[in-house]
Amino acid sequence: MDRNQLNERLPVVVDAIVKSIGSEPRLQHLNRVYLPNRDVIIDCITRLRELIFAGYFGNQGLTSHNLPYRAGELVIELCDALFEQVRFCLRYRASIPGQNDGDAQCEECDHEAARIVATFFDRIPAVRDLLALDVQAAFDSDPAAQSTDETIFCYPGLFAIFVQRCAHEFYKLDVPLLPRIMTEHAHALTGIDIHPGAKLGRSFFIDHGTGVVIGETTEIGANVKIYQGVTLGAVAPQYGQQLRGQKRHPTIEDDVTIYAGATILGGETVIGKGALIGGNVFITSSVPPLNRVTAEPPKLRYRDRRPKRMQEDIMLDFQI
Amino acid sequence: MDRNQLNERLPVVVDAIVKSIGSEPRLQHLNRVYLPNRDVIIDCITRLRELIFAGYFGNQGLTSHNLPYRAGELVIELCDALFEQVRFCLRYRASIPGQNDGDAQCEECDHEAARIVATFFDRIPAVRDLLALDVQAAFDSDPAAQSTDETIFCYPGLFAIFVQRCAHEFYKLDVPLLPRIMTEHAHALTGIDIHPGAKLGRSFFIDHGTGVVIGETTEIGANVKIYQGVTLGAVAPQYGQQLRGQKRHPTIEDDVTIYAGATILGGETVIGKGALIGGNVFITSSVPPLNRVTAEPPKLRYRDRRPKRMQEDIMLDFQI
Amino acid sequence: MDRNQLNERLPVVVDAIVKSIGSEPRLQHLNRVYLPNRDVIIDCITRLRELIFAGYFGNQGLTSHNLPYRAGELVIELCDALFEQVRFCLRYRASIPGQNDGDAQCEECDHEAARIVATFFDRIPAVRDLLALDVQAAFDSDPAAQSTDETIFCYPGLFAIFVQRCAHEFYKLDVPLLPRIMTEHAHALTGIDIHPGAKLGRSFFIDHGTGVVIGETTEIGANVKIYQGVTLGAVAPQYGQQLRGQKRHPTIEDDVTIYAGATILGGETVIGKGALIGGNVFITSSVPPLNRVTAEPPKLRYRDRRPKRMQEDIMLDFQI
Repeated sequence: MDRNQLNERLPVVVDAIVKSIGSEPRLQHLNRVYLPNRDVIIDCITRLRELIFAGYFGNQGLTSHNLPYRAGELVIELCDALFEQVRFCLRYRASIPGQNDGDAQCEECDHEAARIVATFFDRIPAVRDLLALDVQAAFDSDPAAQSTDETIFCYPGLFAIFVQRCAHEFYKLDVPLLPRIMTEHAHALTGIDIHPGAKLGRSFFIDHGTGVVIGETTEIGANVKIYQGVTLGAVAPQYGQQLRGQKRHPTIEDDVTIYAGATILGGETVIGKGALIGGNVFITSSVPPLNRVTAEPPKLRYRDRRPKRMQEDIMLDFQI
Repeated sequence: MDRNQLNERLPVVVDAIVKSIGSEPRLQHLNRVYLPNRDVIIDCITRLRELIFAGYFGNQGLTSHNLPYRAGELVIELCDALFEQVRFCLRYRASIPGQNDGDAQCEECDHEAARIVATFFDRIPAVRDLLALDVQAAFDSDPAAQSTDETIFCYPGLFAIFVQRCAHEFYKLDVPLLPRIMTEHAHALTGIDIHPGAKLGRSFFIDHGTGVVIGETTEIGANVKIYQGVTLGAVAPQYGQQLRGQKRHPTIEDDVTIYAGATILGGETVIGKGALIGGNVFITSSVPPLNRVTAEPPKLRYRDRRPKRMQEDIMLDFQI
Repeated sequence: MDRNQLNERLPVVVDAIVKSIGSEPRLQHLNRVYLPNRDVIIDCITRLRELIFAGYFGNQGLTSHNLPYRAGELVIELCDALFEQVRFCLRYRASIPGQNDGDAQCEECDHEAARIVATFFDRIPAVRDLLALDVQAAFDSDPAAQSTDETIFCYPGLFAIFVQRCAHEFYKLDVPLLPRIMTEHAHALTGIDIHPGAKLGRSFFIDHGTGVVIGETTEIGANVKIYQGVTLGAVAPQYGQQLRGQKRHPTIEDDVTIYAGATILGGETVIGKGALIGGNVFITSSVPPLNRVTAEPPKLRYRDRRPKRMQEDIMLDFQI
């Protein structure tokens, strides 16, 4: 087949794909309300970071004199973008799938969207206060940190916490889609997956962070430290929608440290104040306050590696 | 040294680097055929997503009336880009390194490329049917999912599966480089590393996903659920090219659930229909159908943390 | 509330946010020296990759004839961008927070920046020699690799090592902020978190890589292979700044292989030449040369899953 013959086949190809799209409702969004736009929402996160961490990102040379103008500009841009996206989310929820709702009007949605955005803006100073404590916690907890500025610039854990604290505000205001789109953006950039519904206490620190999963109904107290690969998850998640709405994820009290790779599961599980959970520990029941929980070490096998047994070694390496 | 002195040294710097490039063949691609372009291939993934998940990404307001035109446009753009990239990949393989093949003609490559792109387009409806089942599985399996639309918008597991199912079509058509470039793009965005050669059954669900690794010769049945940090890998991979082409990765039968952090290794290893593999389990041999495999719990040590023993604690924390 | 009422509230919102910014020094960088720019630094990484892996990225059709011009162009662009960013980093360190240092002059910084950039350029050929061995190691070690070119195009481990080897040069030259900004960019794209201070030996290979963490004071010998999820970390990191500057991370000698999910902690811990560390092993003390260390297998529990006990199973699944 040559290039021309390929071109000649395209009409047939398009017909087949159009038919396929028409026949599978789960993978098409036709004749319906506008959906929120991921790119615009991600752009809001960038602007929020510039506003909240004032002077660190975006244009240089921020001074107390130009601050009000820069801040004002960002707030106006954010207001337009967030109002539109929240409105799309609410109209999406209000629309009735299957019917032609392509031009769905929903004035109530628009009023609600305005209320939501105004409430979010009012919360920004409180969110900044929390993030200032997170920055301090990151610096205090990491011997490799040279300054709080470095944690703001470089630390993925801080970025994921910043995004989740913002997304959580929209989650509390019951906005569909948008909060999860925000936290999944942070997940993509950091490998840290914090559901927007999770309740995070003050002075929260996540180090390295890749592989961290914090489920929707998790509650975390103050001064908690978490390392890479920690899961705060649900027991038997495979039962899926049956468990919808239940408290499925653990509660972590104040001053708890959870080392890399630890897995803590279940909505009844409470890790008591000041407890320390060792690396790779797997826990599905509660831990009393001020306890250190570590796994009884699996005996390690040491065996000399004699080159002539190399081939045998191949099979033995993992017969453990 | 000041700025000018730095500028004056640049010619010496350039000479040294040019010499270094000339003398190390493994890090240079000089006087040779054109290579595929990662950015163009990633752009194809974006367009494929817009075409396959019609109405969710890209321009809003898709209707049954404008669909044929939008779809047609996307198909034409994809045809041009994919034909060119597949052609580069085939010419690359056909070229003889070392010789000056900078202007390598390869008509056979071009005809083959046209055949491959046409075949790929014909497979798109079948790929959509599979993805519709994956979307349903994601919604059914995750209590935090509010709608199938949310899974399409937000779920990294679904994105990684979408990319792999497309890349797998090119893998089956024996295109070099391009399939792996596609799946590594998904890996970068999701932390989910599925080799384009892996065979994925229908209704496949990956939750959270960060750290998941699914090797080249893995075979996965229908209705399988996998959680974050699961490895379906090879035994003793360090023997490298010696193992090339062998079945090195496990077979997972229908209706299997594998919890977070489980590691399943080896080409002979078969996880039987309906089995359930517990979190962090490490398996290198087969599991019979309908069994649940969990690790005998390592005894947990609970110890009171007395502040005055803090210093000693530093060393004890991990003597486990 | 409608859109107009929302707009009317914006002045109040801006005032509150400006007040919040003024009152929290940890989250604002006002009236101070310019900071390095993440986007420019990331752009430098892209150009460095184009220069070091000559002909693989950026414009196609590189020949021995046009190479000097292309390389020269890249070096000049890199020189401008790196000089400016290094200078910002040095001026940032020289500035006195709290004081108005918005127009901080620091000629010493500028001379130092010129010296540093010149030294970095001189090191590029040596860095290329190391990367050529890393490319060879990636191809030799991975049965799925079809060519060394594929590893350059697709392998996240190689990208993370490339970025760290460049960042490490700036770390050795004692540049603040910039090295960590570089490695965190690689971390975001690959899930591989290698601190710029870590010492990496030649022929280093990381496969898959998601979740790998290599701490600041880690030392790694030649021909070392590491798989996904491996942590080379510190014991009791929660003691934070108290441990600043100490050797906190392990030493890995030549020819060591460390399988997926293994955790090796502590600055005194030495993994001897030729040792092999099994998957998920957790080690806090040294291992003699030529030993294979694997975990005594936790006994696995196999239990039949009888549908009628499904409800009970929900609770039993993780009572392990």
